[in-house]
Amino acid sequence: MGSNSYIIVTGGAGYIGSHTVVELIHHGYNVIIIDNLCNSSYEAVARIEFLVRKSILFYDIDLRDEKQLSHVFSSHNIQGVIHFAALKAVGESTKIPLDYYDNNINGSITLLRVMGKHNVKTIVFSSSATVYGDATRFENMIPIPETCPNDPTNPYGKTKYTIENLIKDLHTSDRTWRGAILRYFNPIGAHPSGLIGEDPLDIPNNLLPYLAQVAIGRREKLYVFGNDYESHDGTPIRDYIHVVDLAKGHIAALDYMNNLKHDIGLYREWNLGTGKGSTVFDIYKAFCKTVGTELQYEVVGRRDGDVLNLTANPTRAKQELKWNAALNVEDACRDFWKWTTENPFGFRVDNYQWKLFNESDTPNYKNRLHTVKFPDLQVSFANYGALIQDVRYKDRGLVVGFQEFKPYTSDDNPLFGSTVGRYANRIANGSIQIEGTTYNLDKNQNGSTLHGGRNAFNRQYFLGPISKQYKDSNTLEFILLDKDGNNGFPADVETVVKYTVDNNSIEIEYQSSICEDSLKDATAISLTNHSYWNLSDGETIDGTILKLASDKYLKVDPKTLLPSGEITQSTQPLTKSIELVPDVSFDNCFIVGESDFALDTRSRELKAIAEASHPSTSIKISVASTEPAFQLYTGDNVDIDPFRARAGFCVEAGRYLSAINYLPWSKQVLLHKGEFYGSKLMFSFTC
Amino acid sequence: MGSNSYIIVTGGAGYIGSHTVVELIHHGYNVIIIDNLCNSSYEAVARIEFLVRKSILFYDIDLRDEKQLSHVFSSHNIQGVIHFAALKAVGESTKIPLDYYDNNINGSITLLRVMGKHNVKTIVFSSSATVYGDATRFENMIPIPETCPNDPTNPYGKTKYTIENLIKDLHTSDRTWRGAILRYFNPIGAHPSGLIGEDPLDIPNNLLPYLAQVAIGRREKLYVFGNDYESHDGTPIRDYIHVVDLAKGHIAALDYMNNLKHDIGLYREWNLGTGKGSTVFDIYKAFCKTVGTELQYEVVGRRDGDVLNLTANPTRAKQELKWNAALNVEDACRDFWKWTTENPFGFRVDNYQWKLFNESDTPNYKNRLHTVKFPDLQVSFANYGALIQDVRYKDRGLVVGFQEFKPYTSDDNPLFGSTVGRYANRIANGSIQIEGTTYNLDKNQNGSTLHGGRNAFNRQYFLGPISKQYKDSNTLEFILLDKDGNNGFPADVETVVKYTVDNNSIEIEYQSSICEDSLKDATAISLTNHSYWNLSDGETIDGTILKLASDKYLKVDPKTLLPSGEITQSTQPLTKSIELVPDVSFDNCFIVGESDFALDTRSRELKAIAEASHPSTSIKISVASTEPAFQLYTGDNVDIDPFRARAGFCVEAGRYLSAINYLPWSKQVLLHKGEFYGSKLMFSFTC
Repeated sequence: MGSNSYIIVTGGAGYIGSHTVVELIHHGYNVIIIDNLCNSSYEAVARIEFLVRKSILFYDIDLRDEKQLSHVFSSHNIQGVIHFAALKAVGESTKIPLDYYDNNINGSITLLRVMGKHNVKTIVFSSSATVYGDATRFENMIPIPETCPNDPTNPYGKTKYTIENLIKDLHTSDRTWRGAILRYFNPIGAHPSGLIGEDPLDIPNNLLPYLAQVAIGRREKLYVFGNDYESHDGTPIRDYIHVVDLAKGHIAALDYMNNLKHDIGLYREWNLGTGKGSTVFDIYKAFCKTVGTELQYEVVGRRDGDVLNLTANPTRAKQELKWNAALNVEDACRDFWKWTTENPFGFRVDNYQWKLFNESDTPNYKNRLHTVKFPDLQVSFANYGALIQDVRYKDRGLVVGFQEFKPYTSDDNPLFGSTVGRYANRIANGSIQIEGTTYNLDKNQNGSTLHGGRNAFNRQYFLGPISKQYKDSNTLEFILLDKDGNNGFPADVETVVKYTVDNNSIEIEYQSSICEDSLKDATAISLTNHSYWNLSDGETIDGTILKLASDKYLKVDPKTLLPSGEITQSTQPLTKSIELVPDVSFDNCFIVGESDFALDTRSRELKAIAEASHPSTSIKISVASTEPAFQLYTGDNVDIDPFRARAGFCVEAGRYLSAINYLPWSKQVLLHKGEFYGSKLMFSFTC
Repeated sequence: MGSNSYIIVTGGAGYIGSHTVVELIHHGYNVIIIDNLCNSSYEAVARIEFLVRKSILFYDIDLRDEKQLSHVFSSHNIQGVIHFAALKAVGESTKIPLDYYDNNINGSITLLRVMGKHNVKTIVFSSSATVYGDATRFENMIPIPETCPNDPTNPYGKTKYTIENLIKDLHTSDRTWRGAILRYFNPIGAHPSGLIGEDPLDIPNNLLPYLAQVAIGRREKLYVFGNDYESHDGTPIRDYIHVVDLAKGHIAALDYMNNLKHDIGLYREWNLGTGKGSTVFDIYKAFCKTVGTELQYEVVGRRDGDVLNLTANPTRAKQELKWNAALNVEDACRDFWKWTTENPFGFRVDNYQWKLFNESDTPNYKNRLHTVKFPDLQVSFANYGALIQDVRYKDRGLVVGFQEFKPYTSDDNPLFGSTVGRYANRIANGSIQIEGTTYNLDKNQNGSTLHGGRNAFNRQYFLGPISKQYKDSNTLEFILLDKDGNNGFPADVETVVKYTVDNNSIEIEYQSSICEDSLKDATAISLTNHSYWNLSDGETIDGTILKLASDKYLKVDPKTLLPSGEITQSTQPLTKSIELVPDVSFDNCFIVGESDFALDTRSRELKAIAEASHPSTSIKISVASTEPAFQLYTGDNVDIDPFRARAGFCVEAGRYLSAINYLPWSKQVLLHKGEFYGSKLMFSFTC
């Protein structure tokens, strides 16, 4: 496939869609997700991006909107479509059939018409074993082959059946169309990462989600609908297939069509099932084993329309698509349990919301602003530079930041709130040596490299975040893949920035490592956060009372501002407390641990390195870290509307200034493949 | 049903739709037709109106246009919908399936949604026996009952099947919905009036239309697809049902639902068929007998998908709807042959086109302008007053008329081109006596009644026209139902104005009669046409050379302008020729036949009554009629922008001035129930 050609996945934010997108990317496909999010969440897309370390084009479009849909097809080179988007709850479909017919059929008609107009004639259609209806009405029809006559018994199934027919009729009218119809049996499980899974918004209809909610205490007990069927334990038999296997079936179908000769069309149905039936009790037992508890259940009467056995005959897919379900029910139980315990409410996270940060005509989902809100503390983070845009403690703003996105991209922005990397602070002459090789970095300040260069971490969109909620705190995890050669640094480096916010603190955890497939094995790395604090009720920090854990700092050449290796002591009583009167300025690297050269400091206890307050407010900030040093900067060079000099001060916990170029210190910042760079910082607030 | 409540008929301009509208109106229903005319013609609506003597609300709307559709439901009190609108060609559906799914299914989804929103929950759905697919796949399934499993084999049939299911699912979701599914077998025939029928735009797919085209020479021969089936003559058996019977089935279904108890919903399928199968050769023979010729045919191979026998079991409709097919194949052949011979190209008529006359936001189809065009002569007629709006002979305009509609409604409009009635010319004191009863008419001019009063024929919209094409001429027939009491005249009177246009003449035929159900049995009637001719190249008729067939005219009282009964002779040489110089004025009733008191003069030969020309052009007009008199008027009182006095002259052939009030003459204008008033006029042009 061409490197610029895309597979469109409609409904790619949904359960099966999201798992399929992950597999598509793992198989080298470029993906565009189209989803109107009517029954799914953009969180799924953010998590896929996190999982695959790749940005994915996303359009919030209803398929019935022909104009918007056409625009997507006109804007990209599309090679085919995997079409999941549909309303899919059988019970609901009997209550609001018009919505089902309209959304599912009309959406498909519009999609197919737009495809045809753009000469995109390859579609994988997400169908369902529901189209068979009650296959037990025939003799010897279990396991169900694709040749079983169709007779769907509910509006949902009828819409799937109608769309299958539409694709079939379209292929008959124009034999160059390629349509692969995939009829799913009972998808279960979740991605083994625990990041994506089924997210039932209501009472779950499906067995495993229901059982999982019993297991975590959201439901009292499982209801078993009939135990008088002719199975080994009396409960009905279904064909449960792990969602990752199912997802891979789509890749197999796509590959199958791509391997057809040029101009050869196709219309073909394939069952995606395991061929192995499991009873309700089989699943129940497997899941109880995974959880390690006997979950409560009650046997009640049979449900209308339920039949003994609906197991797939998957022979056709095995033979033709070379596809096989590789995972079993135990795998599904394990993965689903991980998903449930790590995301007890699915993608819904309390205390958290996001919005687009830069609202242009075409929404850019890469550029979002995420707010975590507790009663006393509210913090906003942007994907851009994984920066802290706003900190409000007891309704008072404490950091310098812009309301709008644009000024963050200005050359005059002194990295307000940003994650600083790949290399914080100054590197003399923009040159580093790593194991005998000299790398020339981007020189962005007076012949030196400051904060990593021009296209550094603070100028890139981090992927994610993974947003999670714990008992008393929320976390947001961002990830950045910084490519080998960017700004001159060697090696592909993956960096995770994890923020933990509770009612009175923000913790930051940094972790970097060289990607396994990086061509280079070593690099320099040094990360910190560049928030400008102002605790006063005025526009400058003047009058701030400051106390540091250390009054020792690295001596620097007054001309180059670079360290000589010598440590000196401040003449000010910094470890007691000083007032930041207008003529007291700092831009110094203070030393906390004099012979501390660890690469990953995360296992240490957080140690207070600075405390500050201002008499005009009663708010106190305490900065703690696991790091051997911190840069104290009084913001004297700030000059970007509406902010002026001394608008905020920074306490940038991290490694020794320019450690990479001073051999005794370089262990702090020299990262090899297989190692982790790591650190923790924390800002706490009291009143 | 409430007198202000309507049945919406979607696709009401189509074959079955139009016949159903006629039956609905005959059964007392008020009808609104919605049709996007994508495969039908507004002519059908005009002809229905002509046929039922009633104006019908018509909306040119695509059902998928939810906004426009909602507007119709908001504007009227709708009691139910009969839903025909659909693409319906099986063969075409296999070529453009997306259009079929979109138009048929999406149109129905939108219709049902709009109905639901407006709490209109009664629908009769036009389905098809196609939903059964090949019923011979089962044993003993002929004749086909409604319980035969569905398995449509083409996109058209699948859309019908899907919509049936949608209505079924909707009823399941909300039991107050009422859905009657009518599954048609093979509709044939046409309305016995010959005015409406099947109008295949392409090569006919159906047997009878094809045979009819062979009969009139449009096709060479019939192809019989297989004569080796196990029928009595080897050709396959179908259930042919007369379209009028079919139409009545819809009334039966509607009545059935209306008779259900309040709040009782319904979902039910009924076959509409005769229960009697006919082979292709049976139909062939019946039609040949009707036509009176042995039509040519050729037996060729079987068609894909054809089966031996598809005959309905109509028992359910008989028992539940009390409906029965009353007409047979011979009736259908007779009616279809009449339709075909009278409309060999269906609704398509050469030399003719129409447009809306008054284009407002909501198109008013009652108000149209119809143009018949021959190489030398082009004439335009409006529904309003069945008036002649324009006559162009050799590209020169010959009559006074407005380009816009509005001025025609002005009080200053001196009836330019209009049909004059119910009573042309002046009635003294606005009072007439008919068989002992005095009727006081609308006095619209100086205490007298002129040209029938204020709301006379010239101020009403005529229905129709029926537009037809003959070898060298075209006809347009308009009809008006003038109600008892209008302007004070007694009796309901039906008047047909038929124009025949050829390359150099316009003939007008008038026919009036009292409606059978009129409460009054006698009335006064006198009709003519009020065109103002101007053959000059200037703005007045001055200089026109005029010659009349008579120089005798009715003497009138100079004060009342009413005749004394005396006939006098002009001093001018009118039977030779005179020049209409500015001081020569006429407004006199000339007498052609002195003792001519016939009520219907149509059987007579047309006799020239006037000839005129003007030296500035070479065009000559000759006026002929079958009438005993004519009013000559030199237009001296014309005064409406942009026209002034003597803008045109009129030769109004008709009855003696005020004949109703002068006993010896009154036979000319006294119409009794059962009689016809009739006359002919003709304007011929030479150059």
